[in-house]
Amino acid sequence: MPKAAMKLYYCETLNPRKACAAARFLKADVEFVRVDLANGEQRTAKFLALNPNGKVPVLQDDAGTLWEANAIMCRLSDSVASDFWPHDHRQIDVLRWLSWDASHFTQHGATLWFETLIKPLFGGEPDGAVIENAKTSFRLHARVLDDHLAENSVAVGATLTVADFALAAALPYATSAEIPLAEFRHIQAWYGRLEELDAWRNPFPA
Amino acid sequence: MPKAAMKLYYCETLNPRKACAAARFLKADVEFVRVDLANGEQRTAKFLALNPNGKVPVLQDDAGTLWEANAIMCRLSDSVASDFWPHDHRQIDVLRWLSWDASHFTQHGATLWFETLIKPLFGGEPDGAVIENAKTSFRLHARVLDDHLAENSVAVGATLTVADFALAAALPYATSAEIPLAEFRHIQAWYGRLEELDAWRNPFPA
Repeated sequence: MPKAAMKLYYCETLNPRKACAAARFLKADVEFVRVDLANGEQRTAKFLALNPNGKVPVLQDDAGTLWEANAIMCRLSDSVASDFWPHDHRQIDVLRWLSWDASHFTQHGATLWFETLIKPLFGGEPDGAVIENAKTSFRLHARVLDDHLAENSVAVGATLTVADFALAAALPYATSAEIPLAEFRHIQAWYGRLEELDAWRNPFPA
Repeated sequence: MPKAAMKLYYCETLNPRKACAAARFLKADVEFVRVDLANGEQRTAKFLALNPNGKVPVLQDDAGTLWEANAIMCRLSDSVASDFWPHDHRQIDVLRWLSWDASHFTQHGATLWFETLIKPLFGGEPDGAVIENAKTSFRLHARVLDDHLAENSVAVGATLTVADFALAAALPYATSAEIPLAEFRHIQAWYGRLEELDAWRNPFPA
């Protein structure tokens, strides 16, 4: 078997999910390399040389390494000349939703994921005040997205883009992390369609 | 005088600064429209029709409205065919820094700005624990940027891009908001060069 063009370092956590799902969705030529976060592999000198932030995902090819899941999704899209990261009039609108998502949407879903699912794994106690604040902020912004998805089948244009995967990042954990997704029926319907994609449902190597 | 092609709604706050500075830097054809945040103009039905999030900046043209400062900077760059938002091999790297900035850098600077400068304006009390956490997180990530800027004069490539303006968003308030910028000499040198730009130093209409 020929060597894959790129290596994608990942773990089964929230942000790498976007990159892994994008790689599968796009059928990009990547080799998946698991990083053992629970045992601190991300803090080894070898891994910090790939990403000084000590985080996954990281994409590595002959040109160097790329970190940040959204950038990796766009790079993977370019690698197969897909319009999942569009280069036409839709691009600015995709940037709008990527930016909005990072500051106003997944941030709060990710806080709920961390407090309710990740902290307890390491013996931590979920912080009730942080959880309530995150739920309030999630609801406030989910209203904006729900109204948008009432009139649009996807975030931008008529086909899936990196914006949809970014917006969906925390939603696989909606039930287990108490993310109040069920109150927003248009988001829920849109997310249900994403869940029909095998690449989204099963983004990680078995 | 002919009508400007676009309206840029702003206030003299952290995120609109990026959009206003970009408009001036690019000499884009915009009319500046001030939104009176202190008196709640962003919560009026008229403004919410421009941006359902009730936030500035917003860019309006014949095609519609665009929100999120980073997307607006890119749109302004496209409007004058500048490579401030590049469309070549640099683009993915710009996306990396935009994404990293939103989650790991300006987020903490903005928290310090809000706690120390904005909250007191409205009679609030700065939260000491939040401030200390934000300083710790700022330092952790500033180390990564400082190492990058030790070997690069700008965030990406050899000329300014939207990534530089995004990374710099909170730094005009470094002294007043207790952002520990002085500990990072390469960031400080890079930021000093940004400050030499009139568009960055004086982004808002007089």
